[in-house]
Amino acid sequence: MTAYSQYRPLPLAQVPQWDFETDVAIVGFGATGACAAIEARTAGARVMLFERSSGSGGASALSGGEIYIGGGTDAQNAAGFDDTVEDFTAYLKLAGGPCADDAKCDRYGREALSHYQWLKDQGVPYRGNFLPGKIIEPTDDSTLIWSGSEAAAPFYKLAKPAPRGHVIQHMGWGGGRPLVDILETRARDLGTEIHVDARAVALITEGTRVAGVVVRIDNKDRFVRAHKGVVLATGGFVFNDAMRRKYCPESFRVNSPIGDKDDGIGIELGASVGGDPIHMDQFFTTCPWTIPEEQAYGVFVNVAGQRFINEDCYHGRVSRCAVDQPGGKVYLLLDSAHFTQPLDLAGITIAGTGETWEEVEAELEMPAGTLSATMHFYNTHAREGRDPLFDKQAPILRPLDQSPFVALECNFETSYFSFFTLGGLKTSADAEVLDRTGQPIPGLFAAGRCTSGLPAWGHGYSSGMSLADCTFFGRYAGMNAAKG
Amino acid sequence: MTAYSQYRPLPLAQVPQWDFETDVAIVGFGATGACAAIEARTAGARVMLFERSSGSGGASALSGGEIYIGGGTDAQNAAGFDDTVEDFTAYLKLAGGPCADDAKCDRYGREALSHYQWLKDQGVPYRGNFLPGKIIEPTDDSTLIWSGSEAAAPFYKLAKPAPRGHVIQHMGWGGGRPLVDILETRARDLGTEIHVDARAVALITEGTRVAGVVVRIDNKDRFVRAHKGVVLATGGFVFNDAMRRKYCPESFRVNSPIGDKDDGIGIELGASVGGDPIHMDQFFTTCPWTIPEEQAYGVFVNVAGQRFINEDCYHGRVSRCAVDQPGGKVYLLLDSAHFTQPLDLAGITIAGTGETWEEVEAELEMPAGTLSATMHFYNTHAREGRDPLFDKQAPILRPLDQSPFVALECNFETSYFSFFTLGGLKTSADAEVLDRTGQPIPGLFAAGRCTSGLPAWGHGYSSGMSLADCTFFGRYAGMNAAKG
Repeated sequence: MTAYSQYRPLPLAQVPQWDFETDVAIVGFGATGACAAIEARTAGARVMLFERSSGSGGASALSGGEIYIGGGTDAQNAAGFDDTVEDFTAYLKLAGGPCADDAKCDRYGREALSHYQWLKDQGVPYRGNFLPGKIIEPTDDSTLIWSGSEAAAPFYKLAKPAPRGHVIQHMGWGGGRPLVDILETRARDLGTEIHVDARAVALITEGTRVAGVVVRIDNKDRFVRAHKGVVLATGGFVFNDAMRRKYCPESFRVNSPIGDKDDGIGIELGASVGGDPIHMDQFFTTCPWTIPEEQAYGVFVNVAGQRFINEDCYHGRVSRCAVDQPGGKVYLLLDSAHFTQPLDLAGITIAGTGETWEEVEAELEMPAGTLSATMHFYNTHAREGRDPLFDKQAPILRPLDQSPFVALECNFETSYFSFFTLGGLKTSADAEVLDRTGQPIPGLFAAGRCTSGLPAWGHGYSSGMSLADCTFFGRYAGMNAAKG
Repeated sequence: MTAYSQYRPLPLAQVPQWDFETDVAIVGFGATGACAAIEARTAGARVMLFERSSGSGGASALSGGEIYIGGGTDAQNAAGFDDTVEDFTAYLKLAGGPCADDAKCDRYGREALSHYQWLKDQGVPYRGNFLPGKIIEPTDDSTLIWSGSEAAAPFYKLAKPAPRGHVIQHMGWGGGRPLVDILETRARDLGTEIHVDARAVALITEGTRVAGVVVRIDNKDRFVRAHKGVVLATGGFVFNDAMRRKYCPESFRVNSPIGDKDDGIGIELGASVGGDPIHMDQFFTTCPWTIPEEQAYGVFVNVAGQRFINEDCYHGRVSRCAVDQPGGKVYLLLDSAHFTQPLDLAGITIAGTGETWEEVEAELEMPAGTLSATMHFYNTHAREGRDPLFDKQAPILRPLDQSPFVALECNFETSYFSFFTLGGLKTSADAEVLDRTGQPIPGLFAAGRCTSGLPAWGHGYSSGMSLADCTFFGRYAGMNAAKG
């Protein structure tokens, strides 16, 4: 067993030989790593990128390619939304909840417009139009969608709402893959040296400075000297059950990890040299309950027949709050005016039906006067255009009073609750990995889901926040690593 | 700035001189440290104990001196409770929820009876009687009380209930101080060398082994050689706002930290040599809402007028679930048969009264048909002896239908929600501090609230679990440190 076999750092003096020599070594080839490479090369540094899979992608390539951008983009302006840096920044902080990193929110709030331009400069295409409605990802090639809880309580009262989800021009779902492809091409064209099937296993240290990284290629350890810096861009720990058990056990309530070998290695490597994993209990989850779109008009109740949130919030916020409810499931209630067959993929089943809400309640074996009382109360006020309990807003607020009625079951174990982790290394707004006292660890940078970033709080997540974080702070990681 | 000024370990080679030399160095003089000292001395080791305050106590001395013990104690047997190791262990695991450490639960489940005898052997007196009722601490010198959620759903269905809170014989509240006094006397009598006003600032390492500790005394650094082991027994991090912000931000919802300089130093020292802080987001909180005891018969609703728990659970579990509710407060509803003036200390205020629940609801400015509907539903079923929503049990389950009615406000900010942190270093059932790969760090042991132990999950806490953990695993820390 070598010194670094358990992610322990290898002192530079014990390195047997240098197999690779570079200025900046980047670990991980999702959007974060690609953006870091582009900036480090642009700054003139020699850059090597090591990826454990056989190609680029990571979790980024599994995403919708949507980036949370605000403050007055072309697409926002063209659609008549008057977004400001102040409202945008305020929303970022609200979305971070008790975990918000104000410095990161402030910087991204100020610089998101130039980041958007930078993305375009790399070749990322945007059609520039706005697609209204409650949408997870556009099924056409539209740009701008509502992708968060901006227009829902309590957010709308604290920051003027605007849609901020900016999606790469790409027909249909799955814009993440073409987004990463464009960034990869750019990184390659700029001269990044890319090594795939190369798994990082330890950092190399010279005193308190990170001086390189050990990567395993063809089952042999290779020693990489990084004269200026190492960038960790390895994603979260959604595929590491032991880490989830220790740091994020609530995530075992749900069932479908999203990621590509996200085993937390970057967090472990960072921690091995004094990095500080924070907010490790936080995770994103969502069940695609707003597809078909009619379902977005539904009302959620828990197994006690109680509503628990204004359902006009972002589907992920609603889903995360659902997972807090006791009993392992929640019900999405719909009337005949809003019911169509749920998406097969979602694993959402019909649990009860009835000509009245009382019949639905009985079919779910709930005590009489629970779900039915909730729905009578809801409908009475919805007909008046208000939701005195949770402040759900029009146009999502609608009475559900056209019989027959249906209760769909969103079961945390058997429905499709996809999830990924949000906790990770504490980094500065300059993407420096900080130690437990808040000091930067010389030579070490990180971004994306191996850090705690813009999407810090599961209950506040909005679509596009993680890719915003990956691409924006990935760039800073590359820029600052190149400075040495 | 010296190398160890930020909790960084000091390599042994850089130690200028040894000011103290011992086999076992213990940091912290609460119940954990005292028990570690007793066992280490009993095993024949030289023992020095360093405490940052001017005397023993820590958070232990601020407690009720109640220890969670089951499996068939004299007091349980005398009162006719037929507790078993299996039910006791099962409850310990349920109480740990998603954070449970099965190995620790199994060991304590098996050995709690001998631990109880050991406590008696140290001189801790127990009267041996059972005091029925819903009690936070006995106001007389009784031994055994219900101190958890054993008889409440869902626990009673999964482990046969028995009372397990064993309180030192001591008139009135505050048994923690005499408990620590007895343990201190015993530790001193056995020849523990005690240094107070001595604050640990760094560990000393020899390779991967912990070989000593740096303590600051009279503002000078003193170097302590520990030939066999160092025991961390420094408590949690409830008084360290920066740590709370990074690891336990939800705790900022509540207001009254319990502890004695619990600044997380043990966690930081452990992490500085590769220790693994886990479940750092977990915290205990309680508001003394069951005093006067009549209030224990109340019903809680959130600001939406919804019940959220079976109120016969342990007051701390109810309080922790309350703090999950939106709106910054919950209401405790009582009728005239169960209302007496709340405890001044509690900061619980009368928010609304009425001849009917509708009047109370209106006075709280809740929409008509919320709180009142909840109470009509509750009363209808309570009169039939059941609670179909939350399975609250008799005798706590009672209708609240004697007017006038009252709503007491438990406000997270202004009522007395005391709290302490539960996350900490991952340790083995032998009290070894484990690194992030699960391997023991040679020479380093820890117990009590600088570790994640028996009371791992805020929602499952039961009174006496932390002192059980402190005293029991404190002993193992001392025993195993003495083995070197």
